[in-house]
Amino acid sequence: MTAFTHHVFVCGNQRSPDHRRGCCDCEGKDELRNELKTAAKKAGLKPRVRINKAGCLDQCEHGPVMVIYPQGIWYGGVSVDDVPRIVEETLVKGEVIEELVIADECLNNPNCPHIAETQGS
Amino acid sequence: MTAFTHHVFVCGNQRSPDHRRGCCDCEGKDELRNELKTAAKKAGLKPRVRINKAGCLDQCEHGPVMVIYPQGIWYGGVSVDDVPRIVEETLVKGEVIEELVIADECLNNPNCPHIAETQGS
Repeated sequence: MTAFTHHVFVCGNQRSPDHRRGCCDCEGKDELRNELKTAAKKAGLKPRVRINKAGCLDQCEHGPVMVIYPQGIWYGGVSVDDVPRIVEETLVKGEVIEELVIADECLNNPNCPHIAETQGS
Repeated sequence: MTAFTHHVFVCGNQRSPDHRRGCCDCEGKDELRNELKTAAKKAGLKPRVRINKAGCLDQCEHGPVMVIYPQGIWYGGVSVDDVPRIVEETLVKGEVIEELVIADECLNNPNCPHIAETQGS
């Protein structure tokens, strides 16, 4: 019971640039999602792969962030330069790009050291 | 590698009310998501359950729509009245509420009969 082989949620959260937690798309350009959408379409992945916009995914310190379901792959610090690899390696071949993965000790952890850093403690 | 036991994406897509495909949150009230968020918090499900806003999930004819990952449970025609059951049965007990499930023959199917209906063909 799943509509998509890969349902990608790209965080499009906007906050003011000086917010202590930062934001994934401060300028609201939707650039990462648009690039990924175009690349996935070019690779013939539509309609089994969907590139979706999401509200805050609450991993702000690791932004720009995306999560791919149902696999539950969390990527952080993603740039548009990573888009071709995400399409080829993850969406086509089903491989996880380890260097983009948000570390287990950070993911959804209120004691993630990166949160402390941005809070200046 | 998943941050949440249940990551719920509630479609918050807005279109004009006369759009042929309809929309999940035409008035942009975010009511369903807010109710679900409050109820999940009251049930003590935070931080392992997250209620997220999503852009169009492309199952518009079955809106208001939500999808719960990593389980891949798709609910359609959801109202705020369904919120208590979704929390108690699905998010707490892990049970699928069959009457809310979007049928397999509709989910992500361009030939879904409900799409034809809204197109007037």
